[in-house]
Amino acid sequence: MKNVLITGATGFVGSNLARQMSANGCNVSIIVRNTSKRENIADIENLNVFEYNRNIEFLADFIEKSQIDVVYHLASLFVAEHNSLQVKDLIESNISFGTELLEAMKIAGIKNIVNTGTSWQHYEDKSYNPVCLYAAMKEAFSKILDYYVMAAGFNAITLKLFDSYGENDRRDKLINMSSDFSEFKKNISMSPGKQMLNLLHVEDIVKGFYVAGKMLMEKEYKNESFAVAAKENYSLKEVLDLFQQLSGQKLNVTWGARPYRRREVMRPWSKYKTLPGWTAKISLKEGLERIIDRHQSKENK
Amino acid sequence: MKNVLITGATGFVGSNLARQMSANGCNVSIIVRNTSKRENIADIENLNVFEYNRNIEFLADFIEKSQIDVVYHLASLFVAEHNSLQVKDLIESNISFGTELLEAMKIAGIKNIVNTGTSWQHYEDKSYNPVCLYAAMKEAFSKILDYYVMAAGFNAITLKLFDSYGENDRRDKLINMSSDFSEFKKNISMSPGKQMLNLLHVEDIVKGFYVAGKMLMEKEYKNESFAVAAKENYSLKEVLDLFQQLSGQKLNVTWGARPYRRREVMRPWSKYKTLPGWTAKISLKEGLERIIDRHQSKENK
Repeated sequence: MKNVLITGATGFVGSNLARQMSANGCNVSIIVRNTSKRENIADIENLNVFEYNRNIEFLADFIEKSQIDVVYHLASLFVAEHNSLQVKDLIESNISFGTELLEAMKIAGIKNIVNTGTSWQHYEDKSYNPVCLYAAMKEAFSKILDYYVMAAGFNAITLKLFDSYGENDRRDKLINMSSDFSEFKKNISMSPGKQMLNLLHVEDIVKGFYVAGKMLMEKEYKNESFAVAAKENYSLKEVLDLFQQLSGQKLNVTWGARPYRRREVMRPWSKYKTLPGWTAKISLKEGLERIIDRHQSKENK
Repeated sequence: MKNVLITGATGFVGSNLARQMSANGCNVSIIVRNTSKRENIADIENLNVFEYNRNIEFLADFIEKSQIDVVYHLASLFVAEHNSLQVKDLIESNISFGTELLEAMKIAGIKNIVNTGTSWQHYEDKSYNPVCLYAAMKEAFSKILDYYVMAAGFNAITLKLFDSYGENDRRDKLINMSSDFSEFKKNISMSPGKQMLNLLHVEDIVKGFYVAGKMLMEKEYKNESFAVAAKENYSLKEVLDLFQQLSGQKLNVTWGARPYRRREVMRPWSKYKTLPGWTAKISLKEGLERIIDRHQSKENK
């Protein structure tokens, strides 16, 4: 793998993948929108950036000229509970862009792609039962990818992700807690907190993408799905208890002040096939310690 | 079924469904684009026409006020072999519009829908192997419909169609032959013509939609798929031979002058479940005779 193309590289997982691939010595190309915020990739040097304006032929030219070995398709729009105004953006980000990417790859004669799915396609451990419209669109896009596999000879793997976290995560999640601990003092209303989570450190996720890309370089895959999952699940309450214990900070959480979501995932998908040759290395304890260390070193500056 | 809503009503099958439903005494609402050609529905009286401008809330209001019992979703864009410029329109027509329709139905509290699929989702008799991108999008949309069934309690059936024909068909197909027989004299270059077709008369298809709608009024369906298929397959060559024999006209066809399409369907899907309580009534011979009669009566005017 010399030349890789990453979509969604301005996001949390994508930027970590771009940074690591670049550190590994790959030539990293990324596709961005002119509206994409680029703070997550500001520190990465030598990125080959293509601003996509929905012209498939231009994108095909870019892919062809960059002699891409593997495309990593991570771009997506996540919405847990959508409203009607978000439907168009959900389709645009989760289906249209990906299909245009596949079409451009076909024109360019580039056929290796690692696609990104979600454990949320498997509510209540079903072979297909989408938690939300976002998860349904992941399934829908995978069916379109199947077409390129069956009709155009594409070589594809879909990696199914669970929850991700890491010390450079800017997303609005409780365990990210901004850059200092002042957020802890706010009163936070939570559900009862018994939903089990599968939290995987982004470094492990990035390794999963790397492994999947190498697999495509060695063998043909017909859009098989593999999961990259942490070894253990923890309840939301357990996660925050551990966080408090490790940091010595007391969160001001009122458990049970909010109801669970409709279709809250109480137990993560378990009937998955793990990506071969890959295993999670970073325990939740180690991962949380890294986040806390990062916070404390920032506080000390 | 008192109030029905039909999408794709300006098309061949949709207009026949709208005409028949209206003749049955239903209040027929249709959703059209302001760019839709309406020649197929010009003769149908009392249609309740809604021009959709991509505002989901307005569509929801319309559906709610019309007190729709069953939505018949037939709108689609068919392209057998797409090029990259058609990708956006394929998504727009086959996925985006349908998803917006489902979202509007959810807001309106209307849950009965007959969706339209295609036998082309099942190339080489596979449970899923799309002949073309259009067929992949039918599968993708069905996965989104599944979400509305599982998460929002929708009641849905997908009818899988094969080839359709009928005497008021304006599509550019060989057996439609414009309104007179002068087309017959043109030299037509064809493939070897051994591909088997399952041609179902539109009157039988319309009955299938009617039956599926009644089924939804009586019982819950979780987006089960049923086929409406003709009893017998005929090769393209057999169809045109029969047409010539019945009409007494000689077609000027050069068989084998063109290659088969990539992924030509040589044998139609056969592992389907037929719609219960429905059977094809109009044989190919009877259907072709009707087309020929219609042509001759026009010629005599």
